[in-house]
Amino acid sequence: MQKVKMTIAYDGTDFAGYQRQPGRRTVQSTLEEALGRITASPVSVTGAGRTDAGVHARGQVVHFETEAGVPLERWTRVLNHVLPQDLAVLSVEAVPKTFHARYDACWKRYRYTLDTRPVPDVFTRRYRTHLTLGLDVERMRQAAGYLVGTHDFSAFSSARTTVKDKVRTLYQCEVEVLADGVIAIVTAGNGFLYHMVRIISGTLVEAGMGKLDPAAVSDILQGRDRSRAGKTLPAQGLTMVEVHYEPWPE
Amino acid sequence: MQKVKMTIAYDGTDFAGYQRQPGRRTVQSTLEEALGRITASPVSVTGAGRTDAGVHARGQVVHFETEAGVPLERWTRVLNHVLPQDLAVLSVEAVPKTFHARYDACWKRYRYTLDTRPVPDVFTRRYRTHLTLGLDVERMRQAAGYLVGTHDFSAFSSARTTVKDKVRTLYQCEVEVLADGVIAIVTAGNGFLYHMVRIISGTLVEAGMGKLDPAAVSDILQGRDRSRAGKTLPAQGLTMVEVHYEPWPE
Repeated sequence: MQKVKMTIAYDGTDFAGYQRQPGRRTVQSTLEEALGRITASPVSVTGAGRTDAGVHARGQVVHFETEAGVPLERWTRVLNHVLPQDLAVLSVEAVPKTFHARYDACWKRYRYTLDTRPVPDVFTRRYRTHLTLGLDVERMRQAAGYLVGTHDFSAFSSARTTVKDKVRTLYQCEVEVLADGVIAIVTAGNGFLYHMVRIISGTLVEAGMGKLDPAAVSDILQGRDRSRAGKTLPAQGLTMVEVHYEPWPE
Repeated sequence: MQKVKMTIAYDGTDFAGYQRQPGRRTVQSTLEEALGRITASPVSVTGAGRTDAGVHARGQVVHFETEAGVPLERWTRVLNHVLPQDLAVLSVEAVPKTFHARYDACWKRYRYTLDTRPVPDVFTRRYRTHLTLGLDVERMRQAAGYLVGTHDFSAFSSARTTVKDKVRTLYQCEVEVLADGVIAIVTAGNGFLYHMVRIISGTLVEAGMGKLDPAAVSDILQGRDRSRAGKTLPAQGLTMVEVHYEPWPE
């Protein structure tokens, strides 16, 4: 029995999300089918995070177990040969039997990208959310500052969340200007609630529009009321950037 | 009557090329349908170049005439509202009645992009050709040097070309390294024969692989024999970058 940790990238546009669903093209089922073809036996894959339909990944991590005698250094090539063009294996490593892609993750980083120009770039449109708005980046940064730290993020999670404990730690919440009118919101944390990055991004956009006082973010956190935070922005602007299995470096 | 020059960008992946064809989704027909909806009358669009199926554009130029009283500054917004996400109008200007997007073009620039890494980037895969090859960029640059200037490019055009005069001037033929393993071949010239950029790129790749002596490019030009040049590389790596209506600056 070989336990394998694999880092993958995908263009989420044409996937109905990470998680297997009957009759839908998902990342998990596409990986499991490819592994099934290669190993000629059913393989179950577990991801570090279940990204929603339309969400992308540059460094999602998954694990699986197999009896197949494929040498470790061949997995990447063999899998990429079978996988569709919008899903790629970046690297593979052997891990101990106890490793778990989701439970062992210490922190993850996400990036939410906005194209606010009148005519969004045709070549990156699948990976950015288009909002024709003037955004004050300094106000967005002020608002972001209130989110860093350990908080109850109830106000920043979908009402559909089933988890009880909504306390999470954000290590980073930064607003980067990638080009004139192209803005990325980068968040890193020890865990993320359902829709949390998309609601944080929607709230920072409201601060940037002048609709929300940046300092109000502190009150919104304390109020734990979803309706006071910003809108959930669309999935297409969101990318899971990386997953780490060592504690946050500071 | 208003004559309009329009600069457009498109992701060529899902278009059957620029030119109108019955029952196919093409750039020309998509533009003409959009203009027809806006002006409520048939509009014919002429492009500077007829890009093939799968070829992209960052700065294709087209012209059309209309009786519609749409103010010039509104065309961009009105059209982008109607056009699909993979086709965008970048700018619009009024031109004299005599202007012709194809006949008046002085020079065009194309970019052919290769991703030679073992695992190509998932997010740019639609715009690059994936070749898992070690390429010697210096050899490619030497080969490119022989192509600059005024030559009969018969050896670098598809056998399907119908034009008689195959003499063209290349002002630029450069090989850029965009990132480790990502190579762009940039060509500018006063005119391009059918498949010319893709055959030039295929020939430079053979020079980079060591399969072709860079100096042989000079003989290939003189021989005017298509079979001696390199393969026609796939359309997906090719982008029409810009079209100019003023002479090349030097």
